[in-house]
Amino acid sequence: MRYLVTGASGFVGRYLIDAIRRDEPAAEIVAVDRPAAAPPANVTRVAALDLLDLDALAAVIARERPDRLVHLASFSSVGLSWHEPVVSFTNNTNIFLNVLECVRRSSPQTRVLSIGSSEQYGLVAPGDLPLRETTPLHPLSPYAVARVAQEHLGEVYVRGYGLDIVATRSFNHVGPGQSSRFVISALAKQFAELARGRADRIRVGTTSVIRDFLDVRDVVAAYLALLARGARGEVYNICSGRGIRIADAIAIFAGFAGGTPAIETDPALVRPVENEIVVGDHAKLTAAVGWRPTIALEDALRAVYDYWLTA
Amino acid sequence: MRYLVTGASGFVGRYLIDAIRRDEPAAEIVAVDRPAAAPPANVTRVAALDLLDLDALAAVIARERPDRLVHLASFSSVGLSWHEPVVSFTNNTNIFLNVLECVRRSSPQTRVLSIGSSEQYGLVAPGDLPLRETTPLHPLSPYAVARVAQEHLGEVYVRGYGLDIVATRSFNHVGPGQSSRFVISALAKQFAELARGRADRIRVGTTSVIRDFLDVRDVVAAYLALLARGARGEVYNICSGRGIRIADAIAIFAGFAGGTPAIETDPALVRPVENEIVVGDHAKLTAAVGWRPTIALEDALRAVYDYWLTA
Repeated sequence: MRYLVTGASGFVGRYLIDAIRRDEPAAEIVAVDRPAAAPPANVTRVAALDLLDLDALAAVIARERPDRLVHLASFSSVGLSWHEPVVSFTNNTNIFLNVLECVRRSSPQTRVLSIGSSEQYGLVAPGDLPLRETTPLHPLSPYAVARVAQEHLGEVYVRGYGLDIVATRSFNHVGPGQSSRFVISALAKQFAELARGRADRIRVGTTSVIRDFLDVRDVVAAYLALLARGARGEVYNICSGRGIRIADAIAIFAGFAGGTPAIETDPALVRPVENEIVVGDHAKLTAAVGWRPTIALEDALRAVYDYWLTA
Repeated sequence: MRYLVTGASGFVGRYLIDAIRRDEPAAEIVAVDRPAAAPPANVTRVAALDLLDLDALAAVIARERPDRLVHLASFSSVGLSWHEPVVSFTNNTNIFLNVLECVRRSSPQTRVLSIGSSEQYGLVAPGDLPLRETTPLHPLSPYAVARVAQEHLGEVYVRGYGLDIVATRSFNHVGPGQSSRFVISALAKQFAELARGRADRIRVGTTSVIRDFLDVRDVVAAYLALLARGARGEVYNICSGRGIRIADAIAIFAGFAGGTPAIETDPALVRPVENEIVVGDHAKLTAAVGWRPTIALEDALRAVYDYWLTA
């Protein structure tokens, strides 16, 4: 089996490639990433290119004709999308459209996994919880609009051109190596600094909100299960199905660090519009492929905390 | 009042500029179009650029800071979007995003009219007719996806950045000068050829389908009414509210031409997936701005037919 992974050097890419290597030692893995990225060592080949360069991408797809393509490349920050909406949109929607177009032209048998986001749901009404795949989408940021357009393009390429695409709406995920731009990683990093005596307080955004977090190892297990057994043209939530308040994650980290620090609210971390509760329902995914989350939240948080203790 | 019109040289652009000139003789009109386009003579200034060139566009918007911006530029063919999905998407969604970004950066007081399409509704369930702005969108072509993304980006720029954007979902429009890629213009052209003894039959696609056609003069009247009195952040159907079967349009043209010709179905004109009926409801537009269609369909068809008799 030949895999092509875009964004292979990113946080999720490294876990995905490790999981493929573990499950399928003989798999060929082609890592696609920007020239400046440092791809993982355990891949078969590396292709360095900008996914906005359609011709460069077309040459790689035509040469590799992968069995499975996992499109992880994304500018996935909501905050960045507000500062640089054009960069965010092109590096989400346009790069995905380029991937699909190259697959259509020269490798139409490739199964494509299109990674989307719980941000696509946008402003959530209390009656919509937990979020199901049938819940209407009300994208509220440039990033969310870009992800909705990506999912719509996938549908059109399935129905109109017969491509084999499976889509996800992935909820928050956590794990060692994630950028501290994301809340759990940011908290773990600050508590690790605290435990090492390098800080005396932590800075937070809105701690009352409830989110649905998955360990990145469970996320990549879902991706591989969908590649193997997901239904063509369908979209699946990837989530734990359980909400945790940010304040509760803070309490767990305080337990690891052995004490409750001073906590300051940093206005720069508070978003102008924010959902109180975002929790998904993974019943469709579980029914389709048998996937369930396996890693308890406390274990997931511990791994992130331990990572920052030595990072 | 200073207007900036993108796609100023196109079919709708010429009618819009004529209408502005008629209503507001002293208006400044800045025509933006591709270097290869031939802009109308009755504008104040011309800016030749590719809207995908963000820097070139930014310079024009910063210099002109128009009161009103009408974004007519579009690759508006559904058929083209299936052949060239990347070209279609970038020349709809990305050019619009560039327009909004330039307005946000240097002319945030500009009122923007975002032109969308009835194609955004996609596959229509019989219970959804007539289509209202609240009907869910199920875009079914690359073009339709691009237009939905455009509308979503508009919403985000209104809510997130406070821009002043009014959006439309414009249904089929007809008028002299429209490309014969569009069905009514194609039929009129063929009947004109027939009347001039240059053809002995006409070629058609699926004639049983029902569509909602507006004369382009009514369309541009709606655009100017929305610029003057539309509500910021809202989207409005622009349609006649009445369906006509393509076969009935053929019968009207046969009346003009003085006889019923041989009619052949051209498989190239039959679409793989097509709605039986697309009819909109313009109640929201009428309530908001007082607009109603004023030109009877037969008069609209006559104008198109007369155009092709001498074209």
